[in-house]
Amino acid sequence: MKKKHFSDRLFAEVEAKKSHVVVGLDPRPELMPLPVVEEACRGGGSNPASIARAIINFNGGVIDAVADIAVAVKCQIAFYERYGIEGLKAYSQTIRMAKESGLIVIGDVKRNDIGSTADAYALAHLGGNDGAAADFHVDALTVNPLFGADGVLPFVKRAAKNGCGVFILLSTSNATSGQVQELICNGRPLYSHLADLIGEWGGDYVGERGYSIAGAVVGATFPGRLESLRSVMPHTPFLIPGFGAQGGGVADVTAGFDRRGLGAVVNSSRGLIYAFRNEPYAGKYGEGAYKDAVRAATEDMRTGLWRCVRNRC
Amino acid sequence: MKKKHFSDRLFAEVEAKKSHVVVGLDPRPELMPLPVVEEACRGGGSNPASIARAIINFNGGVIDAVADIAVAVKCQIAFYERYGIEGLKAYSQTIRMAKESGLIVIGDVKRNDIGSTADAYALAHLGGNDGAAADFHVDALTVNPLFGADGVLPFVKRAAKNGCGVFILLSTSNATSGQVQELICNGRPLYSHLADLIGEWGGDYVGERGYSIAGAVVGATFPGRLESLRSVMPHTPFLIPGFGAQGGGVADVTAGFDRRGLGAVVNSSRGLIYAFRNEPYAGKYGEGAYKDAVRAATEDMRTGLWRCVRNRC
Repeated sequence: MKKKHFSDRLFAEVEAKKSHVVVGLDPRPELMPLPVVEEACRGGGSNPASIARAIINFNGGVIDAVADIAVAVKCQIAFYERYGIEGLKAYSQTIRMAKESGLIVIGDVKRNDIGSTADAYALAHLGGNDGAAADFHVDALTVNPLFGADGVLPFVKRAAKNGCGVFILLSTSNATSGQVQELICNGRPLYSHLADLIGEWGGDYVGERGYSIAGAVVGATFPGRLESLRSVMPHTPFLIPGFGAQGGGVADVTAGFDRRGLGAVVNSSRGLIYAFRNEPYAGKYGEGAYKDAVRAATEDMRTGLWRCVRNRC
Repeated sequence: MKKKHFSDRLFAEVEAKKSHVVVGLDPRPELMPLPVVEEACRGGGSNPASIARAIINFNGGVIDAVADIAVAVKCQIAFYERYGIEGLKAYSQTIRMAKESGLIVIGDVKRNDIGSTADAYALAHLGGNDGAAADFHVDALTVNPLFGADGVLPFVKRAAKNGCGVFILLSTSNATSGQVQELICNGRPLYSHLADLIGEWGGDYVGERGYSIAGAVVGATFPGRLESLRSVMPHTPFLIPGFGAQGGGVADVTAGFDRRGLGAVVNSSRGLIYAFRNEPYAGKYGEGAYKDAVRAATEDMRTGLWRCVRNRC
């Protein structure tokens, strides 16, 4: 059976759920509700295995709370890798839970290397037919483009075979991103050259809705940039991080969408999953009701984005 | 106890072993000696757990064969990640075996992200004091600089605390690296700007031998580049990949060293660990004697490099 084109699947889900929201599952035990951590550590104290249990329980709660109003989850693997083998078992289990709940899963791994090595990473995270383990298989992956085509096309090709997608770093949301990404090369910033390359690499993989399986990561923290990149990259879906805790708001991301309200999805991590810590949710929901807080924050983000994107506010 | 400075430790080992050789442990079951794979798969067939056993046995053999003539091993994590949880257990076990044999261990992971996430990766791979698991702790790590200082300094700071090092991608060995790394920015190639940044990021961490804990990855496949980078980066140790199977030879890498024969180490992966497959070793050693072939190839690389680097040939 031929697998459905990734971007067609992603934007069909956006329309079905009326949601552009990607929930970032970045588990930090120090920010998680204390009862969840305490229960997991009961008896054995805090160690990688008990922290992994806490992560699985917490993520399970978040997934239940958002499954019908978020389009995808994005798992930042660093927060699992930090707890070694046990942490990565929790990463694998989280992927499984999210898929079972009908969510698209984005593995935020930013892998990169020379061609033969990039293909080994692609097998790890996007699958293949050579007996590689399925533990880390996700629907889409983030990739770093510093190696040029050699380091990116192995991911794009595996993605094409498996009905998956790739989001290539283009303009990241952090404060010092400009040190490299805004260097002026032949009269225009580096990220503008990356935009050309990403469009080229994805050119053969455009689906029925006009978007490629090769997308780009464009931070919400430089709003003018989203508008200019949207206009020169008509076939590239955007994954927009930097929303919420990192400073981007609804109005900042609107320019990343096309006139149909498609072409982008927006991630928030801390602002959603730890909503019980912040107003206006902290006052209404205690840490015992963290799932209600996650759902309320996700629903606010969903409706805010949906209204604004559709109305070009 | 204060931990010894990474570059001082690295170059003390270079001098003690008269070796600049880094052996790349990139396990590919399809290239490993058949008896090693068959033994591991006996009974259960080929699955991630049996492949992980084969990798551990193979790497153990390679480590035994080179422990006294190589200065370090470099483990390319993609080839372990490909086999999921079981593969990463083999990665962890390989790190342990290599450390026990007195080898410095470089985790070739090329991780990169915004600051808070970069620090989670740094905890995973370089350690800290917050209860993160030790499974993946190595002596030095490769890092991708696309995020600028935010994405690199968390690694450098953790490395400084723990007696570890970081090798930051500067000019990679693959054919299309120039698509990004050679873009002309303000009159000179991107990699030349990365050289400035790497020198700056490592400036506060120079040891007794004049080298920082923040090194650079410079491929052997662009020889003129090594010479020019060595002259503008007097305090930056180089990790030079691309030797052997990727095309670089002894004469190509000599310019990466200083007048004392320090300042760089050279990695070869396929050319060493699968030496039994290639002449002149294939004729002399069969796959049953793969350890002897690895040792002979490593010894040839060691003496060839040592002679040439010392004599500036």
